[in-house]
Amino acid sequence: MAQKIDFYFDFSSPYGYLAAMKIDELAARHNRRVNWRPILLGAVFKITGAQPLTTLPLKGGYAMRDILRSARFYDIEYNQPAKFPIATQAPARAFYWLNGRDAVGARRLAHALLRAYFVDNRDISSPEITADIAATLGEQRAEVLAALADVAVKDKLKNEVDTAITLGVFGSPYFLIDGEPFWGIDRFDQIERWLGHGPF
Amino acid sequence: MAQKIDFYFDFSSPYGYLAAMKIDELAARHNRRVNWRPILLGAVFKITGAQPLTTLPLKGGYAMRDILRSARFYDIEYNQPAKFPIATQAPARAFYWLNGRDAVGARRLAHALLRAYFVDNRDISSPEITADIAATLGEQRAEVLAALADVAVKDKLKNEVDTAITLGVFGSPYFLIDGEPFWGIDRFDQIERWLGHGPF
Repeated sequence: MAQKIDFYFDFSSPYGYLAAMKIDELAARHNRRVNWRPILLGAVFKITGAQPLTTLPLKGGYAMRDILRSARFYDIEYNQPAKFPIATQAPARAFYWLNGRDAVGARRLAHALLRAYFVDNRDISSPEITADIAATLGEQRAEVLAALADVAVKDKLKNEVDTAITLGVFGSPYFLIDGEPFWGIDRFDQIERWLGHGPF
Repeated sequence: MAQKIDFYFDFSSPYGYLAAMKIDELAARHNRRVNWRPILLGAVFKITGAQPLTTLPLKGGYAMRDILRSARFYDIEYNQPAKFPIATQAPARAFYWLNGRDAVGARRLAHALLRAYFVDNRDISSPEITADIAATLGEQRAEVLAALADVAVKDKLKNEVDTAITLGVFGSPYFLIDGEPFWGIDRFDQIERWLGHGPF
């Protein structure tokens, strides 16, 4: 059976969004499936001492420019959200909640949430807005809102983040392929070689 | 006349070294010349608050692995230097000193210094070792040592670093092409498109 690609991202990460729009197609060309794993970069940054890229002196201005240029380079629709970055507990919990019974639906929901934030400027940090978006895909709005406040769902996300940190995940997007870590959409060229020709 | 590509790098930067081995060939394919501009990342990091990649929690281990893998990916010889990172005033001053009268020779010297550090594990932070390497290319060892201690040469490097910071340079390698900034060897794909098809 095909090995999976573990794909870690934060719902508020621009490069994570760009990678999310491309990784399934890349994986499919190499007969791999992708295991989507939303995380909370805030929890990771507490350990690494990192800051959101766009807030850094000198680097911040470049980062914003590079994000917009990279979106054009990859031909992906992108509008810088008015509120940025945001806390992403709501979308991440919604993902894991749905993923427990419907992995395909959960991926569809992740796509819809990312597009809502990075294309339509909707603040998905809000449980209500996350529930609204899930409702457009056929979920029960009240059920989603209940799930977002559910201790089991909260613990599931917390465990996922803790596990990711244990595995060394420190950024978004981050990929684990056959135990090999790749950070950034700009490692897609190395991932292609890895998947096509094996370890190097 | 062909526009130049400004190429900023630190002699102690692994990704800067990898880019240095590739940028001239890339530029030549697009009828561009490269303006080599060694800088001191230490001075830049004082402003950005950044730390050497390999020293960061979680990120550091990945960075080391990614550097070695990237060297294999680009098919460039690389041996992690025993002393790392190092201060790079000596090689950077030697470069600007020679560049004042012989740009081709200065580039040849930069290549030799980078290979001495990243292939042959020689500590080019030492003025003596930098002078030894310049001597293998036909420079007078005593003349190089005098230049490294010369106030005019020191000021030249200081001005170059200050100017780079004013222009927004915050990392290595960093490229300015027609006013557009690109950071990292992993932007070579975007640089290729920019040079081949114009701004996007």
